[in-house]
Amino acid sequence: MKYELEAASGAARAGRVELPRGAFETPAFMPVGTQASVKALSPDEIKETGAKVILSNAYHLYLRPGHETVEALGGLHKFMAWDRLILTDSGGYQIFSLKGLTKLTDEGARFRSHLDGSEHFIRPEDSMAIQRAIGADMVMAFDECAPGDAPREAVEAAAARTTAWAKRCRSVSLKEHQTLIPIVQGGVFPELRRRSAEEITALGCDATAIGGLSVGEERNAMLDTVEFTAPLLPADKPRYLMGVGMPMDILDAIERGVDMFDCVLPTRMARNGAAFTSTGRLNMRNAKHARDESPLDPDCECRVCRSFSRAYIRHLFVCGEIMAARLTSFHNLFFYAKMMQLARRAILEDRFKAFKFEFDSRQRSEEENGYS
Amino acid sequence: MKYELEAASGAARAGRVELPRGAFETPAFMPVGTQASVKALSPDEIKETGAKVILSNAYHLYLRPGHETVEALGGLHKFMAWDRLILTDSGGYQIFSLKGLTKLTDEGARFRSHLDGSEHFIRPEDSMAIQRAIGADMVMAFDECAPGDAPREAVEAAAARTTAWAKRCRSVSLKEHQTLIPIVQGGVFPELRRRSAEEITALGCDATAIGGLSVGEERNAMLDTVEFTAPLLPADKPRYLMGVGMPMDILDAIERGVDMFDCVLPTRMARNGAAFTSTGRLNMRNAKHARDESPLDPDCECRVCRSFSRAYIRHLFVCGEIMAARLTSFHNLFFYAKMMQLARRAILEDRFKAFKFEFDSRQRSEEENGYS
Repeated sequence: MKYELEAASGAARAGRVELPRGAFETPAFMPVGTQASVKALSPDEIKETGAKVILSNAYHLYLRPGHETVEALGGLHKFMAWDRLILTDSGGYQIFSLKGLTKLTDEGARFRSHLDGSEHFIRPEDSMAIQRAIGADMVMAFDECAPGDAPREAVEAAAARTTAWAKRCRSVSLKEHQTLIPIVQGGVFPELRRRSAEEITALGCDATAIGGLSVGEERNAMLDTVEFTAPLLPADKPRYLMGVGMPMDILDAIERGVDMFDCVLPTRMARNGAAFTSTGRLNMRNAKHARDESPLDPDCECRVCRSFSRAYIRHLFVCGEIMAARLTSFHNLFFYAKMMQLARRAILEDRFKAFKFEFDSRQRSEEENGYS
Repeated sequence: MKYELEAASGAARAGRVELPRGAFETPAFMPVGTQASVKALSPDEIKETGAKVILSNAYHLYLRPGHETVEALGGLHKFMAWDRLILTDSGGYQIFSLKGLTKLTDEGARFRSHLDGSEHFIRPEDSMAIQRAIGADMVMAFDECAPGDAPREAVEAAAARTTAWAKRCRSVSLKEHQTLIPIVQGGVFPELRRRSAEEITALGCDATAIGGLSVGEERNAMLDTVEFTAPLLPADKPRYLMGVGMPMDILDAIERGVDMFDCVLPTRMARNGAAFTSTGRLNMRNAKHARDESPLDPDCECRVCRSFSRAYIRHLFVCGEIMAARLTSFHNLFFYAKMMQLARRAILEDRFKAFKFEFDSRQRSEEENGYS
């Protein structure tokens, strides 16, 4: 992986990441396709929204259909017919957060499948073997993510284990096109973040992730932690903030020096009827849209906004039609990709703060009118 | 509406229907979009499958979002962004078959909404006003459809009322681009069918429908009734068999002189995991597909078969992903459209019986292998 830092506006960065199988510009948002499918959308549509990288989940694919099946079928790109880039999360977060008995030792994680209760034991080396078989371009180290309300001692122990595991992950060779990304932990504790950042950075990997946020802590604590942690990471490598999030959270994190993002929100909220627009979030089940001929977002040039009215999309939600999820998911991913493009341009033109301020105030305009 | 009979092969007919807003070749299959959406598919995709006409339902649209809303938003074509042809069923069938109190008099039907229990009274004139507002190209007369196991007297009375109501529908003026299609009833009773066909034909409408089949009667009784009824309908006008159905049912009805079909089966069965192929129906939840790299149908050129394996589609079904319904629905509609094109070519080349025989035996080959 090569990273070129093209421009900065304050701490916000515009750059370009090159990988053997493709490149993408940063800041970048990666739509989530947990089970080898970005819910409700086809690969062609995901491309059309502007996304260059999608995220999938090694834990889910390991359980179903099985990483060996994915490999036997030619790898994840071929399996899901996605010829751009893929990042796989290791599954550490899922193993600790999904219901079921989990027992962690320094050796690895013993857990029960959320699907059938079957018992599994995954060591960092296993996670690498699984992700190697799946074949994503970027592969996350196997980490331990403490809950947002965990005491300092637990967070410290998780961060130490994350470092030890990251070293073991580093010792496993991946396929030639694959890049390992280790994860900085440490919760909302500056000293722990500093120590974790030093240890993870010392591994000399090509990119660095900030994990353990958006796990229940306060929004301000999340942003403060990003602000504290991002400058501790190599400036000549991309920085990835895992699992964040809402549009303004992303812009606030870009402002603090983050380059890559993923989150289920734009697609999950779409399925629940929420459409992101330049003037705020809409609840598409709201009766006020029943005869509204305007598109979801009059400022949006996406295929959905060119063809369908709020009235029609509301009708689809009220009727429980699958097309409701499809159209709104597409629009939301287009909105996110567009937001990243605008953010990038603002950085290149060194006016990111002004851009963010204006974006934020427009976001509030329709929401104040009672839409959200 | 203009109909041109281009060729016949036995009783099977190839023709062309012209309407003010578009034309289509027959025999034709019309995908069903009951609530102004062909479930899981976009208008662009429906076009890509080859469909020229879709069917929607006046009863459902009357209740939700309301025919006046559809009209205020520019009519159904604009509302759902479908610029080809639309046929609306009157809703008579739904009113009688959906649960809830229905009281029929010669004047009309009093019923409770299946959505909220609200009471409604619809006369044939109201059905025409509703369908006029919705704006479909082809509009079905408001009819009474007796159940498949109804006694002769009930079927006779329903057929008589259907004629009386068809006359009242005929007296209502529609929009300039709209064509009324009245419906022949009479169950599986030849004399009743003959009488109904005479009465309905006497109205001089541009097309004729055969209703009251596929409502619980035996398959042979259905085909015998079609074979008896079709020749009673004007040869210089298209004949539409409502609600039938499975691929072989359609080919058998084409052989007996029917030109137009609609059915929810290809999309409904797709959502339940059934894929239609040239060698028989597949159950995509079947474990035998888990590592199968071949497409749903190796003989199919559709976008889904060009990109996705049986293994991937099975994975989507097992995971409950929306893409499972999307991919299989698209493929099934493509399969139906292709079947109609092949049938048409066989008629033009006067080899329909041979075509049907071969199609049928190929259909049985994989099903005999335990797929269905």
